[in-house]
Amino acid sequence: MTNRPGGRSARVRAVVLEATYAELVRCGYLGMTVENVADRAGVHKTTVYRRWGTVDVLIADALDSSRDVEWPAPDTGSLEGDLIAIATEVVDVFTDPARSAVPEAVVTAALQSSRARQAKKDFYASRHAQAAVVVTRAIQRGELAADTDAVELIRFTCAPLYYRIFITGEPIDHAAAERAARAALVAARAGLLAAAPNA
Amino acid sequence: MTNRPGGRSARVRAVVLEATYAELVRCGYLGMTVENVADRAGVHKTTVYRRWGTVDVLIADALDSSRDVEWPAPDTGSLEGDLIAIATEVVDVFTDPARSAVPEAVVTAALQSSRARQAKKDFYASRHAQAAVVVTRAIQRGELAADTDAVELIRFTCAPLYYRIFITGEPIDHAAAERAARAALVAARAGLLAAAPNA
Repeated sequence: MTNRPGGRSARVRAVVLEATYAELVRCGYLGMTVENVADRAGVHKTTVYRRWGTVDVLIADALDSSRDVEWPAPDTGSLEGDLIAIATEVVDVFTDPARSAVPEAVVTAALQSSRARQAKKDFYASRHAQAAVVVTRAIQRGELAADTDAVELIRFTCAPLYYRIFITGEPIDHAAAERAARAALVAARAGLLAAAPNA
Repeated sequence: MTNRPGGRSARVRAVVLEATYAELVRCGYLGMTVENVADRAGVHKTTVYRRWGTVDVLIADALDSSRDVEWPAPDTGSLEGDLIAIATEVVDVFTDPARSAVPEAVVTAALQSSRARQAKKDFYASRHAQAAVVVTRAIQRGELAADTDAVELIRFTCAPLYYRIFITGEPIDHAAAERAARAALVAARAGLLAAAPNA
């Protein structure tokens, strides 16, 4: 077995990690087993045990591999447009049961496993850094003060939507996405999301 | 057995619901059993089965009873002060493991049970309505436009903190609380949190 990209090892990893997400969605973190992941992937369970060992490692590796997938930041020409596009994508994912199942299962797993929690944290840090490009571009265009904390503006854009989804259980729609993006932007323009806050 | 407030029935409910939270924290929603709740409460399991039936009903009743507890909204004299006080309480709860265990277990349970999800939704709706008093008072003092959605301002105050706690797994502190409160307020003052948005 080799670790050549595109080789047999990479193909095994791809099918096993796909099966990991499918099992996570089907039974949740506490119901998942390495055996069921191996069965679903059509891979011998010894292979999965030897390479990953536990369900925690499988989930962490699945999240790591998602992190590696390039996520193209929107480029609408204005920061407001870009932030609305980012918020709208959150709404589109979480109002589509086929797309929301994995992130919901991951948040649940992270509440039950410190390994999954770390992998989820790394995933969001990576995604935030990719999304923050829209803010650094806007700073270069002179749309926003140079000391704005780009990642903080992304967090504030997404937070009101995740709050409804995971905490209050209230509905979200595109109007909520626009509202979240505009509220975050007005806070940034007011200097409240500066990189070195006067705390 | 009667339903007199303060009677035997109320005392049984109090010990059983306390045991429900303790078991929820100890084993999570999927690990909880009616038997273990009864054992911990020192109540015969038949009593718990007859009155509540399932773990779901126990959790929902525990949340309902928390909802009934009066939560005194802050009254610092300014809306900014009140919103910072609300955000600071969120930080204080979630940076204290003894206080954060129950809400974390409830969010997890709600991801696994529709009954718990509804109870949690009702809980936050009730808490939001209580907290929104600080906004309606500020509107009466002329600090804010009358068409501000009071509950939406509370949501935007809390959301960036919950986003760090439950989604990104990033730390929170009092500076983050002040930032969240001030960002929400500046969005409200800009008319972005109006009750009837131009969506």
